[in-house]
Amino acid sequence: MTAYDPDNIFAKILRGEFPCYKVYENDHVLAFLDIMPRAPGHTLVLPKAAARNILDISAEDFADVARGAHTIARAAKTAFDADGITVQQFSEAAGGQVVFHLHMHVIPRHDGVALLPPASRKEDAAVLEAQAKKLIAALQG
Amino acid sequence: MTAYDPDNIFAKILRGEFPCYKVYENDHVLAFLDIMPRAPGHTLVLPKAAARNILDISAEDFADVARGAHTIARAAKTAFDADGITVQQFSEAAGGQVVFHLHMHVIPRHDGVALLPPASRKEDAAVLEAQAKKLIAALQG
Repeated sequence: MTAYDPDNIFAKILRGEFPCYKVYENDHVLAFLDIMPRAPGHTLVLPKAAARNILDISAEDFADVARGAHTIARAAKTAFDADGITVQQFSEAAGGQVVFHLHMHVIPRHDGVALLPPASRKEDAAVLEAQAKKLIAALQG
Repeated sequence: MTAYDPDNIFAKILRGEFPCYKVYENDHVLAFLDIMPRAPGHTLVLPKAAARNILDISAEDFADVARGAHTIARAAKTAFDADGITVQQFSEAAGGQVVFHLHMHVIPRHDGVALLPPASRKEDAAVLEAQAKKLIAALQG
C-alpha cells in the first residue's frame, strides 16, 4: 500500500486550505457534504487522523468515524425525510477509493430511488448550502 | 421504522439455531461468510445486540461493529491477497437492507474485478469452508 499523501484534497479540507460544506465536527472527525452526491444529503465522515483507508487506520480512529456516521445517519433521516440509509467505505482503488484520506459515505435513501453513479454530477452550490443548513439543524435538534 | 424482529435469520444464527461459516467472534460481534458472496471472502459483521440497523443501534454498538470490520478487513487482505476492501452497511429496504439485523459487509476486492450483483449466486459449501479456514488463519496469524 502507498504511504499517506498529506496533499490529498481531503487533507487540505481538514487543514482549512480548501472549503467544504461542513455539517459536523468533533475532536476526532469532520463531516461535510459530497459535492458530487449520489443522492441528496450525501455526506462524508473523515477522521482527523492521517489515514489512507481501513488498511492503515487504527481500530479506535475507525470506531470514531463509525460513531460520526451514526450521528449523521440519524440526523439525515430527519433532515431529508429519508426512508433508509446506505453507508459505504472504500479502501484502495480496487475497493472503489478515489480520494486517499479515509472517508465513510452516509447516503440518505428514498424508496424506489436508485443511487446516481459515483461522481456523475456536481451539485449546485445553493442546493448544497441549503442541504447543509437542514442537516445542521437536524444535528442540533 | 418497524421494531426489531427476533426471528430474523441472523438472530437465529446469533442464538446458534442456524449454522454459519463463522470466522470471528468477541463479546460484542460475530462475523461469518456471506453464503451469496459478491466477491470471494465476502464477510458479514454483526453486533450481538438486538439492532435492526443504523437507525436504532447505539453509537457504541455500531463502533464495536466497525472495530470488527476493521479486524476482518486486514485479515481478508492477507487471506485473499486483496488489492482493496469495500465496506457497506445498508439500513431499511430503501437503503438496500434485506435481513433486518444490522450487519456490515466487508468485501475483499481485486483490481479490475467488479462486484457480483447482490444475492446472485449461492457459493458451494466446500469453497466457503476453505475460505473460512483461510480467513481464520489470517486472523490468528
